[in-house]
Amino acid sequence: MASPYELIYYGGVPGRGEHIRLALEEAGAAYTDTATLTFNESREAVTTVLEGIQGNPPYFAPPTFRHGDLIISQTSNILMYLGSKLGLAGSGENDKYRINALALTALDGLSNEVHDCHHPIVVELYYEDQKEESHRRSKEWVKHRLPKHLGYWEKVLKSTEAEGPWLLGSTFTYADLVCIDGVLFAFPKAMKQAKESGKYNRVFQLWEAVRARPNIASYLSSERRQKYDWGIYRYYPENDVVAEDA
Amino acid sequence: MASPYELIYYGGVPGRGEHIRLALEEAGAAYTDTATLTFNESREAVTTVLEGIQGNPPYFAPPTFRHGDLIISQTSNILMYLGSKLGLAGSGENDKYRINALALTALDGLSNEVHDCHHPIVVELYYEDQKEESHRRSKEWVKHRLPKHLGYWEKVLKSTEAEGPWLLGSTFTYADLVCIDGVLFAFPKAMKQAKESGKYNRVFQLWEAVRARPNIASYLSSERRQKYDWGIYRYYPENDVVAEDA
Repeated sequence: MASPYELIYYGGVPGRGEHIRLALEEAGAAYTDTATLTFNESREAVTTVLEGIQGNPPYFAPPTFRHGDLIISQTSNILMYLGSKLGLAGSGENDKYRINALALTALDGLSNEVHDCHHPIVVELYYEDQKEESHRRSKEWVKHRLPKHLGYWEKVLKSTEAEGPWLLGSTFTYADLVCIDGVLFAFPKAMKQAKESGKYNRVFQLWEAVRARPNIASYLSSERRQKYDWGIYRYYPENDVVAEDA
Repeated sequence: MASPYELIYYGGVPGRGEHIRLALEEAGAAYTDTATLTFNESREAVTTVLEGIQGNPPYFAPPTFRHGDLIISQTSNILMYLGSKLGLAGSGENDKYRINALALTALDGLSNEVHDCHHPIVVELYYEDQKEESHRRSKEWVKHRLPKHLGYWEKVLKSTEAEGPWLLGSTFTYADLVCIDGVLFAFPKAMKQAKESGKYNRVFQLWEAVRARPNIASYLSSERRQKYDWGIYRYYPENDVVAEDA
């Protein structure tokens, strides 16, 4: 009997665990998810596994992932592992490293950098205690970084000679799943402006193509999909700025 | 004839390319390094390869790495690739993912977070234009994050049942090479205090054990080793704080 896939992450928000859920849902893989437990139970599951179990080192932070004897952490790492197992990592060894580079860049630019807009000083302090710096960072990020990231992804999408909406052209991979969904939640005004500029049509088409994949569409409309709230992606009206505000 | 390894990165500072250099030097692998060119030449080499060559996607930022037909970016990704090729990734497929998790966590906590101490708002602005926020972040980082990171690595090092100074006990891997070297440069006062506390002895022993490896020792005393200056790790006297300053 094959070991089940186990996602061990806090419940309550999609968070970094969401990238992993999307890969599992896309592939129609059977998995358990501690997000279905109560918040305290999910927290306890996370804490236990971070301590290091059965020949695995302790890890620093969730998401963590268990498959048989192997326990690992780090979103991109879990995605890379699953990508190989679930057939979402292109063809052959070389593609695996190309896709990991793309996924790491998407997680850096479209997730970590956006998170740091509401916590530019340190995550151990509340948003309210770094509100001023957060506001300045949001303005500068939207002005400098957002067009840089969107422009980069547009370039990647246009560079593939083959037809297809995906980062590797006609081959769908787990890197396509990272995309701009959370950025749309955190910075709706700037993203509306970006869309209307017509400069990033392929990027927005990729997002729509991901959401239209049958398994993803079905997941997004299910109760398993949690709402954005206090996690990585947050909406603060005062930070909902456009480039001209900087 | 085997393809040579090619590191394509800016010259002038160790930067993120240094993690890759250390892996290559440790293994005694033959490689070319654009850091040996003039700054403008190295910059041009970086720009060219970022555009995407021969079936490789465009990449967002250096370091980039070329081996035969494959071009990849992202420090952890290049390390993972080299780890397998150079025998620095433990034994078997599962270790590969455990080591990648450790390397990603070390690069996040001991490199990216330290970098963001001098650029908390946005990298497109000068340090001088975010000096106030940088100072606050440095104080809070040294107070909250530094002990969290050092404590975590101490825990990992103590968790291995086998004898040995390495993260996986007796097995040396490329993740050991990331370590605290740059943090010592950026925050000497806080690191002195951390060392004298006696709470992180294994972490400091790991750093010394890495520097004592013959190939690493020889590299560090060679002219190939560039000095820390304006790169990822920077020394600003006003940010050289201890936890009590926060």
